[in-house]
Amino acid sequence: MSIIDNINKAFDHRVRLGIMSVLVVNEYADFRKLKELLDVTDGNLASHARALEQAGYITVQKQFIGRKPNTRYMATTQGKNAFQDHIDALEALIRKNT
Amino acid sequence: MSIIDNINKAFDHRVRLGIMSVLVVNEYADFRKLKELLDVTDGNLASHARALEQAGYITVQKQFIGRKPNTRYMATTQGKNAFQDHIDALEALIRKNT
Repeated sequence: MSIIDNINKAFDHRVRLGIMSVLVVNEYADFRKLKELLDVTDGNLASHARALEQAGYITVQKQFIGRKPNTRYMATTQGKNAFQDHIDALEALIRKNT
Repeated sequence: MSIIDNINKAFDHRVRLGIMSVLVVNEYADFRKLKELLDVTDGNLASHARALEQAGYITVQKQFIGRKPNTRYMATTQGKNAFQDHIDALEALIRKNT
């Protein structure tokens, strides 16, 4: 049992922390909104979002709004639960020293 | 200003979180002790420790104890302060959603 065992590799990057932090308190967030909030490149956001999607933690919805394509992300229940466990593990590790 | 701006890239990996969490509450930790606590390979620990050393956040002391070589890590004041800022940033991001 290592002191970092409960830290979830799928969330172990600040962009992924940022994506999940937004999606667990919002019904959804558009690609552009997340990009703006996190101040990351399209490619960077897309690759981290894809990893979270493959882990089953978020879903992606693609649609047209008027003539414009729109990409929308939502956290899954599994994602919200796993993220809460991850936060608890981070806080347990951090609390050890504050 | 992005919501993840204050998260320090140098600490943005669970092994580095683990190393710093141990070193900010202990005067020092030996390579073997850290390896045991974090349950990581020699190479993995050494590469993350080197990155923290290059960032000026930890120092490394190499000595012989009896006939045996010993590697000892200590957090620098700069490292302790930067890590506290990192933790504050993580908690600010996380608190946004708990």
